Amino acid sequence: MIHALEAEKFIMESAALLPIVQLPLSEVNGKVLRENIYADRAFPPFDRVTMDGIAIQSEAYLAGKRSFKVEGLQAAGMPQLTLDESENCLEVMTGAVLPCNADAVIPYEYTKKEGDAIVVEEYPVAKGKNVHNKATDRKEGECLLKSGQVITAAEIGVLASVGKTDVMVSRIPKFAIISTGDELVDVGETPMPYQIRRSNIYSICSLLQQYGVKGLPFHLEDDKAIIHDKLDRILQLFDVVVLSGGVSKGKLDFIPEVLEELGVEKHFHKVKQRPGKPFWFGSHKETSTTIFALPGNPVSTFMCIFRYVVPWLKKSLGMDLLPILKATLTEDFTFDKPLTYFLQVKVSISEKGQWEATPMTGNGSGDFANLTDADAFMELPMEKDIFKKGEVFPIWLFKPIL
Amino acid sequence: MIHALEAEKFIMESAALLPIVQLPLSEVNGKVLRENIYADRAFPPFDRVTMDGIAIQSEAYLAGKRSFKVEGLQAAGMPQLTLDESENCLEVMTGAVLPCNADAVIPYEYTKKEGDAIVVEEYPVAKGKNVHNKATDRKEGECLLKSGQVITAAEIGVLASVGKTDVMVSRIPKFAIISTGDELVDVGETPMPYQIRRSNIYSICSLLQQYGVKGLPFHLEDDKAIIHDKLDRILQLFDVVVLSGGVSKGKLDFIPEVLEELGVEKHFHKVKQRPGKPFWFGSHKETSTTIFALPGNPVSTFMCIFRYVVPWLKKSLGMDLLPILKATLTEDFTFDKPLTYFLQVKVSISEKGQWEATPMTGNGSGDFANLTDADAFMELPMEKDIFKKGEVFPIWLFKPIL
Repeated sequence: MIHALEAEKFIMESAALLPIVQLPLSEVNGKVLRENIYADRAFPPFDRVTMDGIAIQSEAYLAGKRSFKVEGLQAAGMPQLTLDESENCLEVMTGAVLPCNADAVIPYEYTKKEGDAIVVEEYPVAKGKNVHNKATDRKEGECLLKSGQVITAAEIGVLASVGKTDVMVSRIPKFAIISTGDELVDVGETPMPYQIRRSNIYSICSLLQQYGVKGLPFHLEDDKAIIHDKLDRILQLFDVVVLSGGVSKGKLDFIPEVLEELGVEKHFHKVKQRPGKPFWFGSHKETSTTIFALPGNPVSTFMCIFRYVVPWLKKSLGMDLLPILKATLTEDFTFDKPLTYFLQVKVSISEKGQWEATPMTGNGSGDFANLTDADAFMELPMEKDIFKKGEVFPIWLFKPIL
Repeated sequence: MIHALEAEKFIMESAALLPIVQLPLSEVNGKVLRENIYADRAFPPFDRVTMDGIAIQSEAYLAGKRSFKVEGLQAAGMPQLTLDESENCLEVMTGAVLPCNADAVIPYEYTKKEGDAIVVEEYPVAKGKNVHNKATDRKEGECLLKSGQVITAAEIGVLASVGKTDVMVSRIPKFAIISTGDELVDVGETPMPYQIRRSNIYSICSLLQQYGVKGLPFHLEDDKAIIHDKLDRILQLFDVVVLSGGVSKGKLDFIPEVLEELGVEKHFHKVKQRPGKPFWFGSHKETSTTIFALPGNPVSTFMCIFRYVVPWLKKSLGMDLLPILKATLTEDFTFDKPLTYFLQVKVSISEKGQWEATPMTGNGSGDFANLTDADAFMELPMEKDIFKKGEVFPIWLFKPIL
């Protein structure tokens, strides 16, 4: 039986960077970028007008001129015009190129039309006023995005603006999500009094969805020969196998035995934690498959996915790891077993922006329904028994806070 | 020109609850639940064994008995057996029904086999030991999930366990995402020196994806007749129209004019904020379409989506509104215009779980690439000019922190 932090270490060490695939821009939201992205031209690519109004030579204004004859209109998307006479103006639209020979823009708000001229009120005209100069944001060739960044809406905008119709990203690993246990029936069935419906595989699939993983669900009966045969084939086809159930001391807990028969190397079995003690972890060299065999209790499964599987996935995808969230306990809590305890908490944010966690002690680790009231697991180290109000511990958030 | 908070009020008041649709369980992740979910049976539905071991009568152990003859095996998924002799035991597996006449379970770890009997070491046996009693988590008929909850992995597990193969959720509104401006060319094209590539519509589509919205992108040329014709058809087909560009004072900014010609009621035009001042908002009674006409500047568009469109969407979906995130400023910042300022910030979480925001002042609101370094907009109220280190303000997060 190993420490939770040792288990984490084994798992993270086994994570190898996934291969790169090229996908169209429309499919890379949420994926991990695997190439650096450079500016193909300067940002902005030309001296860009930022207000609708008139473009003039600032010197003319500073010399006292207030009425400007209109030479024409420079709209956005038009090739650059030239201001022929330094005493005149060109009407310009936001997004247009600043006309040649002009160096400042006076917004319409400060002007009025008089015949074929535009008369300007007092306005703080200066060279470059209301002009976003070429290359002031980014220079051509400058690195805009780095390999390892997660592609969100902001990155999509950058990729589009440099013309990346196809983008190099990490391949999403193929996950088999397997439930075991003869007490389980499918969601659409009416269970007998001694049966319950399968739920773990559906929640695992849905929580991996946010990382782009489309988990394929399976069910294995408590029959050693069937488990052996099916697992053998599943190992050939998937990058990751997540099992739920069948890893304890029970007479029908064939999973660890069968996995070892199939040549899967065990990295550990059992972790000093609650919930999730019977957690088994291994890898299959031949097929490069990683196997997380989790306890079948729904809360244990759920916690292990967030605490172990998701960080493994993030590292394999090459994601820059974000700092671990932390929160302060709002009340004392005691847990005196020599185990790391994952306490279900409700998270709130104080008026001052401080994250606070209130214990949501349900009826033990089996109460899955309690998870819908909680937001996170707080990781309480096994080296302590008493956790005081105001102390800070890591939290593993499982509800969106946006 | 109205205050940012007034703009928010107009927008939120215009949000009407979307209709309900029934979807299969596999499609409701991330959606908003629109029915209460009740326990169809007790949780757990029977006295459930929580450890692999032997089930006995606790009185026999307490009376000094330590060797128990094995009558048989009660596996998970088997109908309930009966312990015939109070001096004997039944082997039981995690997840099994507690056999009739037994009231406690001793884990295998504390036993050894001797012939056809199992001998128990010292163990704190008590009535109910390692048994999760029927209905102790939830009673039959108890409400497990409430209408308005967002369906995440935990809720999926609950829905599966009560047999909901189909679930009532809010219909996702149909969004048209429209760029305008003749300076824009498509991502795959090589722009002329006076052109830039379209990027806003792609980032808007991707950021609405996390709410299940599949935005349909359009582009409108700066031609009033075409805009009129296309917008007319788009209003008939979509619940929401998000426009980017064409709402300022420019000679080719036809959007507000055309929208009003088409019978769209203007709720406001222009907000005392930076970026995003020319924001126009209205609704079309006839088609029940809501129109957000945003400034075309990429950062303005991005901010307005997070600050206004997403809260409107959440309210329309019937989502329980989460508290607004807040953070403390890590350095002084000055902004002395009479506008609400949306400052780009990098968010970090202190050792104590305090959220802190560091200004990322790029090169003005046009620098879209800057958004990839920042995580959030901090909303600095227009009533103040000087924002001191340590003060707390709301933030609008646009990067995932999980």
